[in-house]
Amino acid sequence: MDKDKTSEFLTKEQIIAATQETLRRFGVGKTSVTDVAKLLGVSHGTIYRHYKSKKELLEGVTAQWLEDEIIAPLTAIAKDQSYNSEGTRHLKVYIEVLIARKRHYAESDAELFEMYARVTQESADIIAKHVKHLVRHLSEIIQQENHFQFNNPDVVATAILQATARFHHPAHAYEWQSPTIDAELAQVWLLIEKGLLHLEQERE
Amino acid sequence: MDKDKTSEFLTKEQIIAATQETLRRFGVGKTSVTDVAKLLGVSHGTIYRHYKSKKELLEGVTAQWLEDEIIAPLTAIAKDQSYNSEGTRHLKVYIEVLIARKRHYAESDAELFEMYARVTQESADIIAKHVKHLVRHLSEIIQQENHFQFNNPDVVATAILQATARFHHPAHAYEWQSPTIDAELAQVWLLIEKGLLHLEQERE
Repeated sequence: MDKDKTSEFLTKEQIIAATQETLRRFGVGKTSVTDVAKLLGVSHGTIYRHYKSKKELLEGVTAQWLEDEIIAPLTAIAKDQSYNSEGTRHLKVYIEVLIARKRHYAESDAELFEMYARVTQESADIIAKHVKHLVRHLSEIIQQENHFQFNNPDVVATAILQATARFHHPAHAYEWQSPTIDAELAQVWLLIEKGLLHLEQERE
Repeated sequence: MDKDKTSEFLTKEQIIAATQETLRRFGVGKTSVTDVAKLLGVSHGTIYRHYKSKKELLEGVTAQWLEDEIIAPLTAIAKDQSYNSEGTRHLKVYIEVLIARKRHYAESDAELFEMYARVTQESADIIAKHVKHLVRHLSEIIQQENHFQFNNPDVVATAILQATARFHHPAHAYEWQSPTIDAELAQVWLLIEKGLLHLEQERE
């Protein structure tokens, strides 16, 4: 990175990129604001002008990571109109991609995943916003599907997300290596799918 | 405690009781085998004769705690014959009591709950045994109920337990204080309940 850039021209994007690099090098526990400042060739006061603490910095990086790596690909799936009239199939594909993205990062980018797991426990607001986004996606899919007529699709969407938490919530990452995880997901999904079709039937 | 008892007469039960007392006093992170030995008035070698490490000691205490505080009350519920022919009601009561016990200990005995949460992440065997016990209970309830005719009740029992993980798995304890947690559980349960009734219908 350019060591001569002045603080006036330091953008949030540059700080976030440098923080990611520092996290991958030192891990979440050992990364300090000073390490990030060093990498950018600025004083730590320059970073504090944008992020008031290490906690805020980790929140900023996590919010950006969730947006780019989880929400962006899922938005494409939520907006895909080709699943219409296939019952629960669109919902299933969405949940499967959500789970695949989480597993991928837990395995291949452990330090950033660790940051996300920590922020999930400590920063309720960031995660509430993220979960709201996932619920909105699932709710849109439910409303696109001619087959479903729910009075409150957001409530149903939340229940789907929570009933599959074991397979995508970062606190369960240590269980994802299990050889039976895919068979277990298939059974939980079968239960949810039958539940959705039956909930729906009774409203018609 | 009697400071003069010799190591020959030190039972596992005494060590477990002393460890619980030490954990409540110092917390999981700061408790050492030496602290437990001190409380019992013996050398730490005496403890090591029963438990080879702090990890094994925590596992022993957790296994006993799960047995006494979670499995014992749930066994009484699983064996209760009075729910027959009430469909999913027996399963619902079982899951509600499981959730209530976990929440109770997360709130009222935080240090022992923290020990259990830690062992859950680090000692797969202890927890696998515990989960197997819960699955056996749920499977027994399914088989007692005349209404259900599943080919593999253990698989259905596992799916019920996993779909409700957010409400009883210790990694989610930080979410249990949420004012919407009970409404969310009710919606997840509704989905599971409809799923169970519909899964079952198709087999008949």
